Amino acid sequence: MNDCLFCKIAAGEIPSGKIYEDERFLAFLDIMPINPGHALLIPKNHSRNMLETDEATLRELMPLVAKLARAVMTVVGANGINIGINNEPAAGQVVFHTHIHIIPRFSGDGYRMWGGKEYEEGEEKALAEKIATEVETGLRTR
Amino acid sequence: MNDCLFCKIAAGEIPSGKIYEDERFLAFLDIMPINPGHALLIPKNHSRNMLETDEATLRELMPLVAKLARAVMTVVGANGINIGINNEPAAGQVVFHTHIHIIPRFSGDGYRMWGGKEYEEGEEKALAEKIATEVETGLRTR
Repeated sequence: MNDCLFCKIAAGEIPSGKIYEDERFLAFLDIMPINPGHALLIPKNHSRNMLETDEATLRELMPLVAKLARAVMTVVGANGINIGINNEPAAGQVVFHTHIHIIPRFSGDGYRMWGGKEYEEGEEKALAEKIATEVETGLRTR
Repeated sequence: MNDCLFCKIAAGEIPSGKIYEDERFLAFLDIMPINPGHALLIPKNHSRNMLETDEATLRELMPLVAKLARAVMTVVGANGINIGINNEPAAGQVVFHTHIHIIPRFSGDGYRMWGGKEYEEGEEKALAEKIATEVETGLRTR
C-alpha cells in the first residue's frame, strides 16, 4: 500500500523505535505513548485491520504479543499491561494497517477503564442467542 | 481453580449469555457491557492472565476473536469494534482468569481513547534499544 504509514515503517522508509523484527512482523514504540514503552506490533503484510487479517497471521500474533508484553513490563518496571486493538474509526482506529497496542501500566497512573452499564431484564439472553446463531453461521461459511 | 468465577462459568455452574463454545473456549456476554453485545472470550483451562497463558492457547485466540467480532458487529449493527486484554490490577484486570474483551462500537457513542503524550528528545530511541535487547533475551530463554 503506497500511502500507508505503517507499510512505510515496515519497509524501513520511515524510521521507528524498533523493539522487534522478524520476516513477518515488526514492533516499535508508539510516538505518542499512553505510558513510556507503549509499543505497536504490526504484521508487515498489509491488511486494513484485524477484521481483514488472514488467519495464519492471526495465529502468530498473540504468542508474540505476550513475549513483547513481558519484555516491555520488565524494562519499564510496569505493574500491568493492556493489549488493545481498535478496528474502524468508530473504535478509535486512526492508521488503517492492522496494529496491536501493547500499553504498560503503573499502579495509580490515572487511566481508567470505560464503565459498563447493566442490561435490561431479558435483553442479555435474547442478544446472546442472536449472536450465537450468527457465530455459527460465520463459522460454517468461512 | 475452585474460587474462580470464570472457571465456574466455563463449567456451567454459573449461567452466562453464551455466544460460542467449543472444547477449549467459551464466549459469553459481559453482564456490565460498554455497549450491548460486549462479549468475553475465555480459554476454559485456567490461567491468571495473558502473560501466563500457554502458547498453544494463545495461537488459537485471535482467529476466534476475529470470528466472534464479526458476528457481534453484524448482530448489533456496530460501526467498529475494540479488542482489549487487561493484565494485572494496574491495567484494570478484575477477574483473574484470562479473558478477551470484544467491544462493539458505534459512531459517536461517546467513549474516547486515552490520550498519548510525546517522548522527550532521545528518550524513545534509548527506550526502544533497551526493550529490543530484553525481547531478544526473552526469545532465547523461553
